[in-house]
Amino acid sequence: MNADVIERLNDVLIARKQADPADSYVAGLYARGLDAILKKLGEESSETIIAAKNGGSEQIIHETADLWFHSLVLLAALDIDPQLVLAELDQRFGRSGLEEKASRGDDRN
Amino acid sequence: MNADVIERLNDVLIARKQADPADSYVAGLYARGLDAILKKLGEESSETIIAAKNGGSEQIIHETADLWFHSLVLLAALDIDPQLVLAELDQRFGRSGLEEKASRGDDRN
Amino acid sequence: MNADVIERLNDVLIARKQADPADSYVAGLYARGLDAILKKLGEESSETIIAAKNGGSEQIIHETADLWFHSLVLLAALDIDPQLVLAELDQRFGRSGLEEKASRGDDRN
Amino acid sequence: MNADVIERLNDVLIARKQADPADSYVAGLYARGLDAILKKLGEESSETIIAAKNGGSEQIIHETADLWFHSLVLLAALDIDPQLVLAELDQRFGRSGLEEKASRGDDRN
Repeated sequence: MNADVIERLNDVLIARKQADPADSYVAGLYARGLDAILKKLGEESSETIIAAKNGGSEQIIHETADLWFHSLVLLAALDIDPQLVLAELDQRFGRSGLEEKASRGDDRN
Repeated sequence: MNADVIERLNDVLIARKQADPADSYVAGLYARGLDAILKKLGEESSETIIAAKNGGSEQIIHETADLWFHSLVLLAALDIDPQLVLAELDQRFGRSGLEEKASRGDDRN
Repeated sequence: MNADVIERLNDVLIARKQADPADSYVAGLYARGLDAILKKLGEESSETIIAAKNGGSEQIIHETADLWFHSLVLLAALDIDPQLVLAELDQRFGRSGLEEKASRGDDRN
Repeated sequence: MNADVIERLNDVLIARKQADPADSYVAGLYARGLDAILKKLGEESSETIIAAKNGGSEQIIHETADLWFHSLVLLAALDIDPQLVLAELDQRFGRSGLEEKASRGDDRN
């Protein structure tokens, strides 16, 4: 089911590249450029953190959806297929259980 | 295909709740608590922004995968089914094209 | 000189607690509550990161000023004197050179 | 007083540019490059948000000090004098009360 969600949403996001920025939120974001999309991504991340501290499931689901949505806008803007992200998740974590190498905790820098 | 990725990954994340924190990165994150998971989410968001500014697709895919992965860890820690996030995306954006109400751009606060 | 800046700014921020939210940006932020202030802090952090990647000094100075400004709004909202933050910086880093304990690099969790 | 803190701290940060990365946390950060500093800035921002939601003054002061500290490391790495940030704060907000133009609330994009 969700395959359809991400793929269908991505199809719409790609189609929006032809839309008038005045008519479409996403076309407006594309028009404002990469930095505007990244600012939204940063905002949605902070809002997800705040929602999780507040603890209401509905708000957490809403903000996580916004975070994933703006991730997908970013990928669409950069012509990166979200299937590549899912394939990376699958390769690293999904197939034979989570990758549990010690380096996971250290990959911050 | 990706339905499987997210669902399979979520199954593994739930199973990790029984694992020894010393043996598993995710079990260690659960043991350190909600704030530790949220800090990782914040980190991965910043790293996605930095990767996007650097411009290499491979790094962007890698960091977006990390961001989604830690979102899924957060949801699992809070016993929220990621299908609810996908359903919200589908309801708001996927089915009949993106929701384009003007308020979208103003929902920051 | 800058002692005056931070102290004077803090005085103004405290005075704004009596202002009409409709007349003052800061009074409006207070009225919208802690989460609205924290969202601004998260935003300004992302914008500072983006500005640093763009590399123009003017934009970096502007965004860092916004970041420090919203930190000060947060402290004022919580009735925390910013001198306590400066005292902590002084104690940890300023007086006899930077504190260089190995744990600094590990304080992420 | 705090003028001394920021100025003294900045002097130390500049001096650390000559230090051995193996001996100094800050020299290590410089050596790892701009992205490593920006990741720390993003981390400290998230940790400040989490601390504010937790509500303990001591943790908030600690995380705000870390946030300001890493802002100062960023400025030092980029050869930007923090006095320029304080001057911008002073010009925009300090002297004659806060700048309260309506555009303040809209400068997010």
